[in-house]
Amino acid sequence: MKIISSKDNLLDGINIVQKAVSSKNNVSLLDGILLEAGDIFKMTGNDLEIGIECIVESDIRKKGSVVINSKMLGEIIRRMPESEVMIEMLENYDVIIECENSHFKIKGNPADDYPSLPKIEAEQSFKISQKIAKEMIRQTIFAVGVDENRKILMGSLIESMENEINFVSIDGFRMAMRKRKEDIQNTNFKVVVPGKTLSEISKILQPVDNEIEIFSTKNQILFKINNCMVMSRLLEGEYLNYRSIIPDEYETKVKVNKKEILSSIERASLISDDEKRYPVKFEVIDDTIIISSKTEIGDVRDEITVETEGKNIEIGFNPKYFIEALKAIEDEEIYIFFNSDIGPCTIRPLDSDEFAYMILPVRIKN
Amino acid sequence: MKIISSKDNLLDGINIVQKAVSSKNNVSLLDGILLEAGDIFKMTGNDLEIGIECIVESDIRKKGSVVINSKMLGEIIRRMPESEVMIEMLENYDVIIECENSHFKIKGNPADDYPSLPKIEAEQSFKISQKIAKEMIRQTIFAVGVDENRKILMGSLIESMENEINFVSIDGFRMAMRKRKEDIQNTNFKVVVPGKTLSEISKILQPVDNEIEIFSTKNQILFKINNCMVMSRLLEGEYLNYRSIIPDEYETKVKVNKKEILSSIERASLISDDEKRYPVKFEVIDDTIIISSKTEIGDVRDEITVETEGKNIEIGFNPKYFIEALKAIEDEEIYIFFNSDIGPCTIRPLDSDEFAYMILPVRIKN
Repeated sequence: MKIISSKDNLLDGINIVQKAVSSKNNVSLLDGILLEAGDIFKMTGNDLEIGIECIVESDIRKKGSVVINSKMLGEIIRRMPESEVMIEMLENYDVIIECENSHFKIKGNPADDYPSLPKIEAEQSFKISQKIAKEMIRQTIFAVGVDENRKILMGSLIESMENEINFVSIDGFRMAMRKRKEDIQNTNFKVVVPGKTLSEISKILQPVDNEIEIFSTKNQILFKINNCMVMSRLLEGEYLNYRSIIPDEYETKVKVNKKEILSSIERASLISDDEKRYPVKFEVIDDTIIISSKTEIGDVRDEITVETEGKNIEIGFNPKYFIEALKAIEDEEIYIFFNSDIGPCTIRPLDSDEFAYMILPVRIKN
Repeated sequence: MKIISSKDNLLDGINIVQKAVSSKNNVSLLDGILLEAGDIFKMTGNDLEIGIECIVESDIRKKGSVVINSKMLGEIIRRMPESEVMIEMLENYDVIIECENSHFKIKGNPADDYPSLPKIEAEQSFKISQKIAKEMIRQTIFAVGVDENRKILMGSLIESMENEINFVSIDGFRMAMRKRKEDIQNTNFKVVVPGKTLSEISKILQPVDNEIEIFSTKNQILFKINNCMVMSRLLEGEYLNYRSIIPDEYETKVKVNKKEILSSIERASLISDDEKRYPVKFEVIDDTIIISSKTEIGDVRDEITVETEGKNIEIGFNPKYFIEALKAIEDEEIYIFFNSDIGPCTIRPLDSDEFAYMILPVRIKN
C-alpha cells in the first residue's frame, strides 16, 4: 500500500474514525485504524459497538491495506508540517510515513484479522441537517438510562412519522422528548440507538446546515455524514409508549422565566454535597414559587414571581434532573405543569409541542 | 459583622484569596476564608505556606469577623444575580448571605483561631509590570527542582541588580534564566521563592501593564497586586552561582529556526511512551541537524537546515527538557551552543543576553 494525501485530509479522517477506537479494548488490533487503498482510500475504526469508515481523498500509488495503532498514527499526522504526507507499507508490515524532511518508520499489523464492518442493506432512511441532529441529541441524551437491567432505556428512541422527527430518552425517573417538523417522506422509522453511539455521533456532527442521512435495518443504524459512515447496532425490544405517560391534565400550571428558575434551582442545590443529593422543595403559592432546600450545611430560599393557574402545591425534586432539562431549553419562558405532589411534573413550551420534559418528584421531609 | 458589596467585587476577591486555600489541609479552619470588617473589609486565605489578603470595597454596616468555608462561599457568590450582596454574621456564627430574592443561611466559624498572617516589615522592594512578571515566571518555572533533598532548588532565584531583574530556575539537569533590563533603584534584592508560590502568583497576575510591587525581608516575600497582598516564606540557603556554570566557550554554534527545531523534537519524542522517555539524538553535520530517535515502536528522523560554526557533533537529550525550554522562547531564531557530547548545551538569543537555557545531555546507545 502506498498513498499520498494532504495532512489536513488525513487528520480530519483520523479524528473521526478515532471516535470508534477504544483504547480499553482487549482485542489489541482494535487499538488500530485500518487503512485500505483500493480504488479509493478508506480509514476504519471499530470497537465492535460502533464502526466508522471515512473516505479520504488520496493519490493511490499502490493498493493494499494495513492496521496502524490509532493513537500513534494520530499523533504523527497531527505533528507533521502542513503539507503532503506519504504513507507506505513495506513487505514486513513496517509502515513509512513521510512529510517534507520528516521520516517515520513504525510497525503496522496485517489487515486480514481486522473485523469487517457489517454490510448494511438500508431499508429506510431520512435526511436531517447536521445542526438539528446535533441539537436534538444534546437536548435528550442526558435522560438516557444507565440501568443495565433495563437495556432498552440505555438508548434514545428516534422516530419519524407524519412529517415529524422525535427523539425521546427515559431513564425511569424522567423523560426528555424533542419533536421537530420536517418534510420526511418515510413514515415508519422507529429505532432505539445506544446512548454511547449518539454521544459519539454528536461529537462528529458540526453546527452546520448541510444534511446527513440516517439509514436503518432491523438491527443496525447507519449515519452518513459527508464522506463518513457511522454504523452501530440498535437496541432490541419494545420502547416505552412515551405518549401514554405524558399527562394531558394538570392541577397547577406555572408560567416562568427559564433563566430565573434555573438560577434558583442551581443555588438551592449548592448546599448539598455531590454524593448526597438533597431534594429541592418547590412551593407554588399564588403568583410566587419559593424554591428552597435545607441540609446540614445550611438553608437556602429563593422567591420567583410567576403566573399561576390552578391550585397551590408543595413538591420536591432532585435538582439535577430539573437543571439538566432546563439547560436543554432555549425558550425564554416555559410552562411547568404539576398534577399532585406524587405525580410527575412536565415542562413544555408556551405555544408549541416541540418539547416535553417530565420529572418524577421525590418525597421531602418537613 | 454585616457588609454590603457588589457580587463582582466579592467574587474577584474570593477568586484571588482561594488560591491560598488548600482543600487538602488537615486544619479544617484553613478550608475557610476569613472575612474581617473593620474600617475596611478584608478577605484572607492562608494555607500556612502562602497567605493572600484582599481588600474588597464594601459598605460596612457592622464590624466583626467570621470564617466561611471557601468552596461554599465561592459557589454561592458565583451563582448570585449581578447585584448587591449582603453578608451578615448572627450571634451563633450562622451567616446570612442575601442578594435580591435569594437568601442563604450557612454555618460560619469564629475568627479567633484563624492563623494570622505574618507582619512583614519590608526591607527592600522593586516594581515590575504584571505582564512582565507573569511572563518571567512562565519562562523559568518549569525548571524548578522537585527533589526534596535539594530544597533550595525547589524555588526560583529572583534578583535585581544594576538595573536588571533576573529569574533563574535550576533542577540539576537544566537551567532556565531570564534577564530583563528595568530601571530598578534597589541593587541588592536576591531571594529564592518557592515554585508553588510563583505558580499561584502567576495565576493571579494578568497580562496588563500596571505595576505590582515586590517586597522582601529575610524570610518572607510579599507581592502587592492591586488591592491584594500575597505573602510567602522564602527558601533558606545559598542558591547556586548560576553565572559560573554557563559556559563561555563553545565547540559548535548552530543558528536555527525555533519553530522548526521544536516541531522536529516533538515528532522525535512521539515514538517513546510517556514513562520510558527515550533520548533524542542530535547530529550536527555541517549545515544540517538530524534529529532522530529509535525505540521499540519505531524510528523517526528529521532533517533541518541550519547555519553552523565549529565542529560536527553527535549528542543526546531528554526531549522534554528541550521542548519546555523552546516553548518558553518567543524569538524566531536562536543559537544553540554545544561544547562536547557530555557537556551542557546552551540556548541563547541571537543578539541579546535576555535568556539562557542550559540542558545536560544524556548518553545515547548506538
